[in-house]
Amino acid sequence: MERLKAKIEAEGKVLSSSVLKVDSFLNHQVDPHLMMDIGKEFASRFKDAGITKILTIESSGIAPSVMTGLHLNVPVVFARKKKSLTLTEDLITSSVYSFTKQETNEISVSKKFLQNNDTVLIIDDFLANGQAAEGLVEIVKKANAAVAGLGIVIEKGFQDGGKLLREAGIRIESLAIIESLENGEVTFRNKELEEVTR
Amino acid sequence: MERLKAKIEAEGKVLSSSVLKVDSFLNHQVDPHLMMDIGKEFASRFKDAGITKILTIESSGIAPSVMTGLHLNVPVVFARKKKSLTLTEDLITSSVYSFTKQETNEISVSKKFLQNNDTVLIIDDFLANGQAAEGLVEIVKKANAAVAGLGIVIEKGFQDGGKLLREAGIRIESLAIIESLENGEVTFRNKELEEVTR
Repeated sequence: MERLKAKIEAEGKVLSSSVLKVDSFLNHQVDPHLMMDIGKEFASRFKDAGITKILTIESSGIAPSVMTGLHLNVPVVFARKKKSLTLTEDLITSSVYSFTKQETNEISVSKKFLQNNDTVLIIDDFLANGQAAEGLVEIVKKANAAVAGLGIVIEKGFQDGGKLLREAGIRIESLAIIESLENGEVTFRNKELEEVTR
Repeated sequence: MERLKAKIEAEGKVLSSSVLKVDSFLNHQVDPHLMMDIGKEFASRFKDAGITKILTIESSGIAPSVMTGLHLNVPVVFARKKKSLTLTEDLITSSVYSFTKQETNEISVSKKFLQNNDTVLIIDDFLANGQAAEGLVEIVKKANAAVAGLGIVIEKGFQDGGKLLREAGIRIESLAIIESLENGEVTFRNKELEEVTR
């Protein structure tokens, strides 16, 4: 997605060979019009997949997910990282290790919001080691619902989450795949290779 | 906002005389079209306030905020409840006690996203005791920016956050004000009183 890649080039900050900071438009400050375009793009790519529900994880996945839900006319559920006292009923849970925050979170979704006849599009802001995505896939499977695929805003192609999930047969649509962050520079995966990856 | 009130009446669950659960469309599962309408409504109410930025707090404030930002053409910043390892620069912080979760969170915003020439609309899903709203107001003031007002999706009119903040001179626009949750029923503040409250 060219507009997204241009934004990453203009505003993304390479903090190390593995860390890209995009907190000016995605992770902390959010650009609503870019989110709208991202939602349209995910909706377009999954329009024939029979999606009935979008699943994401708080917090950075929420904005792109809600915009996608708007265009696919389906509800969005965000998995919570901690149990709230007002979420009292049956939960589906999974454990997710965050390399960024160096902690393990129990993520959970209320059973009533994922049914066995749901076809679920999982959306997240980043795909790196794939921990969060795998946790969300596990939750969908525990609900006996179908995983239509993953919509990822930014995939770190040099980490192995995408590879492992694709090998497991899961469709992944990443709007920008980063090949490398070496030498303080963002290098995107070239288009031909991106097509093959898909 | 009538559509919101109808949704609360249809899907809200009164768990006690102080707890209303709206996790089917706002707090856990999100209705994107309702969020769009909420965003339009906040944008309409604050269209002449010179808003340059929206500030909210993760996670349930994000969806209504991004939709409001879309209509006001301004960026959204969401305060974080925990420091992330990739947020390394200067932070503005405030302490917020959550009665729902019975814990104190340090909330923080990167200094670079709130400037002293910003006019900030603060948005949140609920206003009850006002702890989160006060923390967000404090952050805006620490940034030497101006608070244009608060946009609240659901205000618990029987708790004193709204009263205290209005007495402090802060404009509050609540899309639904709940007068009471007694006897397992949602009673909204009547329109005349709602006008006076504003």
